[in-house]
Amino acid sequence: MDNKISTVGKVQTQSVKFEDRFILESGKQLEGFEMVFETYGNLNQDKTNAILICHALSGNHHAAGYYEKSDERKGWWDNLIGPGKAIDTDKYFVVSPNNLGGCHGTTGPASVNPKTNEVYGPDFPVITVLDWVNCQALLTDYLDIKIWHSVIGGSLGGMQALKWAMVYPERINKAGVIAAAPKLSAQNIAFNEVARQAIITDPDYQEGHYLKAGKSPKRGLRLARMVGHITYLSEEAMRDKFGRELKEGKLGFGFDVEFEVESYLRYQGDIFSENFDANTYLLMTKLLDYFDPADKHNGDLVKAFEPIKAQVLVIAFTSDWRFSPERSKEISNALLEANKNVSYLEIESTHGHDSFLFSEDRYVNAIKAFLGNNQ
Amino acid sequence: MDNKISTVGKVQTQSVKFEDRFILESGKQLEGFEMVFETYGNLNQDKTNAILICHALSGNHHAAGYYEKSDERKGWWDNLIGPGKAIDTDKYFVVSPNNLGGCHGTTGPASVNPKTNEVYGPDFPVITVLDWVNCQALLTDYLDIKIWHSVIGGSLGGMQALKWAMVYPERINKAGVIAAAPKLSAQNIAFNEVARQAIITDPDYQEGHYLKAGKSPKRGLRLARMVGHITYLSEEAMRDKFGRELKEGKLGFGFDVEFEVESYLRYQGDIFSENFDANTYLLMTKLLDYFDPADKHNGDLVKAFEPIKAQVLVIAFTSDWRFSPERSKEISNALLEANKNVSYLEIESTHGHDSFLFSEDRYVNAIKAFLGNNQ
Repeated sequence: MDNKISTVGKVQTQSVKFEDRFILESGKQLEGFEMVFETYGNLNQDKTNAILICHALSGNHHAAGYYEKSDERKGWWDNLIGPGKAIDTDKYFVVSPNNLGGCHGTTGPASVNPKTNEVYGPDFPVITVLDWVNCQALLTDYLDIKIWHSVIGGSLGGMQALKWAMVYPERINKAGVIAAAPKLSAQNIAFNEVARQAIITDPDYQEGHYLKAGKSPKRGLRLARMVGHITYLSEEAMRDKFGRELKEGKLGFGFDVEFEVESYLRYQGDIFSENFDANTYLLMTKLLDYFDPADKHNGDLVKAFEPIKAQVLVIAFTSDWRFSPERSKEISNALLEANKNVSYLEIESTHGHDSFLFSEDRYVNAIKAFLGNNQ
Repeated sequence: MDNKISTVGKVQTQSVKFEDRFILESGKQLEGFEMVFETYGNLNQDKTNAILICHALSGNHHAAGYYEKSDERKGWWDNLIGPGKAIDTDKYFVVSPNNLGGCHGTTGPASVNPKTNEVYGPDFPVITVLDWVNCQALLTDYLDIKIWHSVIGGSLGGMQALKWAMVYPERINKAGVIAAAPKLSAQNIAFNEVARQAIITDPDYQEGHYLKAGKSPKRGLRLARMVGHITYLSEEAMRDKFGRELKEGKLGFGFDVEFEVESYLRYQGDIFSENFDANTYLLMTKLLDYFDPADKHNGDLVKAFEPIKAQVLVIAFTSDWRFSPERSKEISNALLEANKNVSYLEIESTHGHDSFLFSEDRYVNAIKAFLGNNQ
């Protein structure tokens, strides 16, 4: 089978409703929630082949395959998940949920609050990576999976995998922590803050009650996404992709689109602003800023990692300036110092932070080998 | 005299009106314009000691001294310009204009168009670095200066110094090109584009006619400045300055200011949005994007630099990721290849792009030596 074109095919979104009160890290609570997810491949009889996929900031549960054959866009990790691929659905049962607070089916700010019968909007509580991991643990119980073969994700997804290994050490054999960081830098937070301010200061944000008002802070979301996109790509990738190419071939001495890169950013911003919920974006950037696994240990990562039993693979990409290899090394070095089973791999790639979405050979092979070995 | 506290003292803004039609690089024209500037020190009898200071994106003519003794903020290069300082006003006659299109006195979008008796607003033509240099040449004539001892500036100011050396080789002895780039990268343009889109999509922008409408696109300007500030500081400077410090000491699980870096960015954005004209900001980012000294030579910088006669000092800062040392080296390498008199200096500094506004010893001494030698 040709790996390049193999696919899990047509997929369906599944859903589960957790009725019990769910206590968040902030102390707030939800009176239950719904969670959507997709699965690819089959669970074996021992239930030892399940892999949990954790999505990043603006991701969702649609990680592989397609809904309709005519879909131009496949799942966001379709290049890695499928029969014979790095995350091989011939061997593994792959589970990919949409996280709490999301806007693609799982309960989030755009859902109706059963207590008030109104949309949550800005009243949806701020959530954390720990909350996400706890939700995913409920899903794990629901699927009757005792222990994950692996939990894996890129960027914010990698942070979830790391948190899984810390919080549920008995329920995870391997953690794939890709293009992540142990916590955000001041610069990372600064970019997130610009994105949040773009949304919050958009007059159509209506203090978060835009759905009720029949509006949408599209201008703010669009700007937030434009800023985000700059940090996802490397300077090199931007140069290779756009250079200083002019759309019309000459300077226009005006403010219409002139350079190709402007056109790209506006397009990305436009699409995103049509398809994503602003309150969800706010929540997710905040969740990123808050992530700090060593916060209960005075910043001591080694101590924080003590409970970990999983085998960990940390992968970083040379051109990633959002979460640079140095940040990944902080994770792997602390794991080493804590005497954990960890491998660190730095992949040459020009795609910047987005590299985790691409299929560099070394990257694909590393994941395949990591999942396949039985150490 | 202690260099640290020496100052040019109280300064006054001067002004000159150029009545003649001024043809811009775009082909458009202005029916004359007014230019404000400051001078520090005295012109010698031979008129051989005049130094032109070129300001950057959001800078202006107030480069040294103060207007009132109570002013907390001195001119933007007061640490470098003054008696006994790097740009020594005991020896040199320093001239610092506000550039065309500005919003601090020189004719710009907020000025009245004499043709229509209305504010220019968005009808102010797009200008280029060449236009700026040509304006400054008019000021040079007005001051009866035949040849500049030096033209010097940081960032966009360095680009002007470089252009001076190319366009008026007989009128400039030395060019100080600090923290500049031969042209903007796709990433640089992308950041400018986000800033522009923030302004243009602010409903109060009113398609540029905000002054007429009695409004101001402050939200957009604020965001534009916030994005800018991230690119002016190095990741290291941000970490040292803010780290992940929380303003209230603990997480608030909300969207008020939490991290110190958020507070800083909002503050900077607020101040700027009160004091800068949005149309000027649009013009200046565009002027940066357009800068491409080799555009008439198929991208061949060596050819473009052929006319240069000035001695050039190129300075870059290690932590500057907006215009990295690699970009400065492109300039100095091309000058070398064109057999020009050029020195390249890379300064260790943690302040990022803003380093050119600081007073690292090596930096200060290098400028002093460069201006003082009589090669």
